[in-house]
Amino acid sequence: MSEQIVIVGFGPVAARLVDELLPAVRSGKVGLTVVGEEAEAAYNRVLVADLGVGRTTADALALSDAAELAGDGVDIRLGVRVKRVDRARQQVLLSDGGAVHYDRLVFATGSRPVIPNLTGINPDPTHPVLPAGVTALRDLRDAGVLRQAVDGGKRVVVLGGGVLGLETALAAAEEGATVTVVHNGPHPLGRNIDRGGGSVLAASLRRCGVRMAGNARSTGVEHNAPDGGFSALLLDDGSAIDGDLLVLSCGVRPRTELAEGCGLSTGAGILVDHKLRAHHEPHIFAIGDCAEVRCPDPDCAPCRYAKGPSGLVGPGWRQGEWLAEYLTLLADGGDAALLPALPAEQPGVIVLKARGMNMAVAGDNSAEPWDEDALAAGAVNGRPRLQVSQWADPEHGRYVKMTTRGGVLEGLVAVGMPRTAAELVGLFERGAELPADRSLLLRLDGPDQLPGTGAADPAGTVCRCAGVSGAAIQGAVEEGCSTVAEVSKATRAGTGCGGCHEDIKGLIEKHFRAVQAA
Amino acid sequence: MSEQIVIVGFGPVAARLVDELLPAVRSGKVGLTVVGEEAEAAYNRVLVADLGVGRTTADALALSDAAELAGDGVDIRLGVRVKRVDRARQQVLLSDGGAVHYDRLVFATGSRPVIPNLTGINPDPTHPVLPAGVTALRDLRDAGVLRQAVDGGKRVVVLGGGVLGLETALAAAEEGATVTVVHNGPHPLGRNIDRGGGSVLAASLRRCGVRMAGNARSTGVEHNAPDGGFSALLLDDGSAIDGDLLVLSCGVRPRTELAEGCGLSTGAGILVDHKLRAHHEPHIFAIGDCAEVRCPDPDCAPCRYAKGPSGLVGPGWRQGEWLAEYLTLLADGGDAALLPALPAEQPGVIVLKARGMNMAVAGDNSAEPWDEDALAAGAVNGRPRLQVSQWADPEHGRYVKMTTRGGVLEGLVAVGMPRTAAELVGLFERGAELPADRSLLLRLDGPDQLPGTGAADPAGTVCRCAGVSGAAIQGAVEEGCSTVAEVSKATRAGTGCGGCHEDIKGLIEKHFRAVQAA
Repeated sequence: MSEQIVIVGFGPVAARLVDELLPAVRSGKVGLTVVGEEAEAAYNRVLVADLGVGRTTADALALSDAAELAGDGVDIRLGVRVKRVDRARQQVLLSDGGAVHYDRLVFATGSRPVIPNLTGINPDPTHPVLPAGVTALRDLRDAGVLRQAVDGGKRVVVLGGGVLGLETALAAAEEGATVTVVHNGPHPLGRNIDRGGGSVLAASLRRCGVRMAGNARSTGVEHNAPDGGFSALLLDDGSAIDGDLLVLSCGVRPRTELAEGCGLSTGAGILVDHKLRAHHEPHIFAIGDCAEVRCPDPDCAPCRYAKGPSGLVGPGWRQGEWLAEYLTLLADGGDAALLPALPAEQPGVIVLKARGMNMAVAGDNSAEPWDEDALAAGAVNGRPRLQVSQWADPEHGRYVKMTTRGGVLEGLVAVGMPRTAAELVGLFERGAELPADRSLLLRLDGPDQLPGTGAADPAGTVCRCAGVSGAAIQGAVEEGCSTVAEVSKATRAGTGCGGCHEDIKGLIEKHFRAVQAA
Repeated sequence: MSEQIVIVGFGPVAARLVDELLPAVRSGKVGLTVVGEEAEAAYNRVLVADLGVGRTTADALALSDAAELAGDGVDIRLGVRVKRVDRARQQVLLSDGGAVHYDRLVFATGSRPVIPNLTGINPDPTHPVLPAGVTALRDLRDAGVLRQAVDGGKRVVVLGGGVLGLETALAAAEEGATVTVVHNGPHPLGRNIDRGGGSVLAASLRRCGVRMAGNARSTGVEHNAPDGGFSALLLDDGSAIDGDLLVLSCGVRPRTELAEGCGLSTGAGILVDHKLRAHHEPHIFAIGDCAEVRCPDPDCAPCRYAKGPSGLVGPGWRQGEWLAEYLTLLADGGDAALLPALPAEQPGVIVLKARGMNMAVAGDNSAEPWDEDALAAGAVNGRPRLQVSQWADPEHGRYVKMTTRGGVLEGLVAVGMPRTAAELVGLFERGAELPADRSLLLRLDGPDQLPGTGAADPAGTVCRCAGVSGAAIQGAVEEGCSTVAEVSKATRAGTGCGGCHEDIKGLIEKHFRAVQAA
């Protein structure tokens, strides 16, 4: 008899797991049920803002075809919630009254937006009731609301200075909306960026037409629009920021209540070990935004410094791929213990790109060059101290900070210097040593660098979401792919946040220039 | 009858005035008397520290030959003090009982070291009594005291973190002494350098073998040496810095008491107008360290922002040259009013060079890139605001700050980047606009710059003391000068602080390489 696998949730990460399990499903070794709350099959949620500004289509966002999957024998339940998990009977109870048995259960419930506690908004986290003109920009319906505002050249207020809020703001401003970003602290991106970088970033955003309202504490929303909808965000200094649409971009929180309800351990997310198994429960797994990898072993060093879910799609996809292999081995009766554990994710790199705007930050970049205490921290037992090199030219919107230990980057900030940023991100991801004269890196964005001559390392990652190298993309281009969509289909590069689309286009153009020149 | 000129003081600035007056003396138009307190004729006081560490000889320091001048008809009085000036009778009364009539009197009394108020030192400014082992390093005798300490590999404590103190410390450390610089504040050079530059400078000094004791307030000296001389500098936190010789380098103060005694107006120095005339006294002039150019016109804009004497030899020499021309015209009965006034001195550039150490600072470099208040100061009536570009790489001892207004430098700091420093100093002195991409300037000290290929502007000043351009030095070399001494004799380049000697050597070598290659 085949092994019954049930996946709760049908977002991008679940979709990847389903894809990878298909061979086992088709061969009859695995019976697979997917329960999705939304009416649609999995789509690329990362691009909801792009959809909202009219840069992409709902079709292009689709990640799964429910009919096709059903044809392959997958039991797809859309528009249905799991009410409860009965671990004793190994079954899930559905909102439509049904029940499904599982041998293995995978939580892929993702996360939900944090709804800030503002007067005029019901902050009940599980069932937030947002007034008209307020959206958390999470699903396809939300994208339609943003689309209307952008097409009408309306005033959009984005609450939150995280990378998603900034991407939404930049895109909406570029497409014609009047956009204000309201955020805490002196600069956007909070603790992900240092003071200098944050200051140059804020100025760059302003130059891109985005109004920045920093050091702002919002207290409520006013709904005096003719339709009774949102009309202004109220701040604690008594001022107000008028607008037609409020986009809440205050972060996400893992959806763990179902797991909690059946007695699983949770921290920030559902706690799983290095094999993505819920603690003390061999039949249940969790992946993606709802999962927190932190094993029960108190002496496990990586877990001591592990952070919660990243909120990025790339790590979830890698978990989905790994778990599919593991579950297939289990269903095969193979020795799943031999499968090497999923490698720990590298610290995330945050990239922000728009017309006239480029930023990359990674790692710990808070220490300043003269901050002896911060630089000496962690320098024990012969481990070298942190060193900081810094280029600041705020007049020209340029800023670079390289935080190194023993010559290797532990953190970086690059604003307004796209080639330097790409090179630093590559050096950071490879853990490679920087040249002794750090100022050499600034030359990459010097006036004498011709477009397309950047010495990009082909082994370097171009698509960080799907983990695809430049060499793999070049290979696909050489075999005939001539559009980003074709490259995405062939390699999965560009299927995540879309931030690498320009780079993929560049590789395609470079190939065809070379072909024409030959 | 010839015009009687009396010069009080016989230092480097008086020597230049005497030299330039010689033609008028020889022709009998001018009768010239010079009264010098020291037993020696004028010598290059700037190099007393170099003499003290054995890098030069007393002969090389000589600037005037008393016998030769006497042969030319100059009345030289050495080892004699002026006791009093009798303005009513137009004569100076001397310590040897003599009296000399003057038609024109020139004060060139220079300055004297500031003696800090420390227990164990008599701080009477006019007659300081320094205990054995304590020197202010001002005259040839002081140089001998330092020489003994350096040759003996003794411990030298330098009190004061100004440029003269640092030069002395670097030279003494290089020549074998154990040197500690004791200074106020977190870094040396005080307000002449910004925090970042000061921090990198202090580290560079340490790398050059100089111990730095910052944030130190000294309270007294201890004399427990076997000969009863200096043994330790006492600090106000109860600690002490042991040593064998204490060099006081706490700045200088103009010697004005003689001028005050005869009723002349003084500020920081003897107040003179733009023609170097004492206020309301057409017969008396002042030049060099004792003079403060600040005219009596309360509406004169340059004088509103004028600072006191610079303490540098270059401005004094230019005053001496100008005054010689003016006095010659007066003696000729020519229309001296037609002589253009001496141009205002540009803000000083401070340069520090040693083996493995290079620093240049100039102008106002205090504003930090993120200091909106400081950057906006002075930006009124359409005047652009200050902008700061900054490269910090303290790990490699490198730091550059460029403070610009409208693209033109108002201040600069460069540490550990000699070519960038030279280029920036040139741009600063010419008031030239910087390239939009400021990081281009960092390339001058990149690893791919071969020695001698720096694109130095031949019109740029090489010797700032004597105001000699690279082109003038090249001309002298092409006409046969093949040593620094020969170039100095021909052009006066290198006769001041000696900081340009390496540059002159470079120009000589470049010429001979080119000749050999031809």
